Amino acid sequence: MSTVTVIGAGTMGAAIAWRVIAGGNEAQVLTRRPVATAIPGAKHGAVGDPITGEIVVLALPYSAYDEVLAQYEGQLDGKVLVDLSNPVDAETFDGLVVPAGSSAAAVLAEAVPGASVLKAFNTTFGATLTTGEVGDQKTAVLIAGDDADAKAALAAVVEAGGLRAVDAGSLKRAHELEALGFLQITLAATEKTSWTGGFGLTS
Amino acid sequence: MSTVTVIGAGTMGAAIAWRVIAGGNEAQVLTRRPVATAIPGAKHGAVGDPITGEIVVLALPYSAYDEVLAQYEGQLDGKVLVDLSNPVDAETFDGLVVPAGSSAAAVLAEAVPGASVLKAFNTTFGATLTTGEVGDQKTAVLIAGDDADAKAALAAVVEAGGLRAVDAGSLKRAHELEALGFLQITLAATEKTSWTGGFGLTS
Repeated sequence: MSTVTVIGAGTMGAAIAWRVIAGGNEAQVLTRRPVATAIPGAKHGAVGDPITGEIVVLALPYSAYDEVLAQYEGQLDGKVLVDLSNPVDAETFDGLVVPAGSSAAAVLAEAVPGASVLKAFNTTFGATLTTGEVGDQKTAVLIAGDDADAKAALAAVVEAGGLRAVDAGSLKRAHELEALGFLQITLAATEKTSWTGGFGLTS
Repeated sequence: MSTVTVIGAGTMGAAIAWRVIAGGNEAQVLTRRPVATAIPGAKHGAVGDPITGEIVVLALPYSAYDEVLAQYEGQLDGKVLVDLSNPVDAETFDGLVVPAGSSAAAVLAEAVPGASVLKAFNTTFGATLTTGEVGDQKTAVLIAGDDADAKAALAAVVEAGGLRAVDAGSLKRAHELEALGFLQITLAATEKTSWTGGFGLTS
């Protein structure tokens, strides 16, 4: 059994914790503020509590990363650290706040060199993690990273939870995943697709 | 009725010309070498022949753009010029040959400032232009560009041909479309999706 620590319990964090538990794995959910409704089966705690998971999912806005990471300095070494952010420039809504050609995941990997950073979940809307489908396709969680064991560990949790895990290549592909995530957000925001849909990957 | 000039008659060019004709519009198909099999209803010619379409689709590898554009210097002014390339670095297969943060479409727009450049068709595999579907979704042709009239003209041809046209925003979004196109190619090349599928956009 794996333990996954999910930091954040918004739409994404709650859906991921639920899928982790549905797959027979353990979810520790750490939040900055107490949650209104506990996630059944999850072990709730506060950001700052010791991390029990070998996989840690940052289910936070990108802008909150620094604040949360500061509380876990040195404690993420050896962990699989999952970045699901779409670092959209909230002022212009016309690009990302990360350097051109790079990605939030690459920035995170530099900030936490002791962790195995993966990009995942940023191309699926929260609703499709819950329903498990995009159109007639099973929701596909695209995972990019340089550590094959880390990718396999996350993929096992995703698949156990009933979703499709897809190896999207090296961490360099986080750039493309973030472009896709951003594009998908712009299309939903302009009603070209729905927040319960988006892009479905055919098998 | 619109006339669309399609330069190139490979998988993409032939599928686009066929959809143009299916929609009751006219297709001029110009190729560097004579085609083995004529596309029914298309007016075939050679690259270098005068362009009759108000919409011109470059259905060519990105590496062939310069050679073909050189033959039409000044003749593309006032045209809607459609870039469908995925400028993948063929040596590394690990990125694109265009500058980081930019796009082939942006490079093209600089090279042909008199034309209204659009990015379109690069996120749909040729097969899905022909079948008209990706999974259970109608094939969506994502169109990015800065000229609303140009986008509307192309969208009308796409919709008449039986596909879904989706306004993907300004030409800046070509960066995201090219990232998606590249990602989709890597996923098909590694058998995570099929060349007859890829990403389908839910409505």
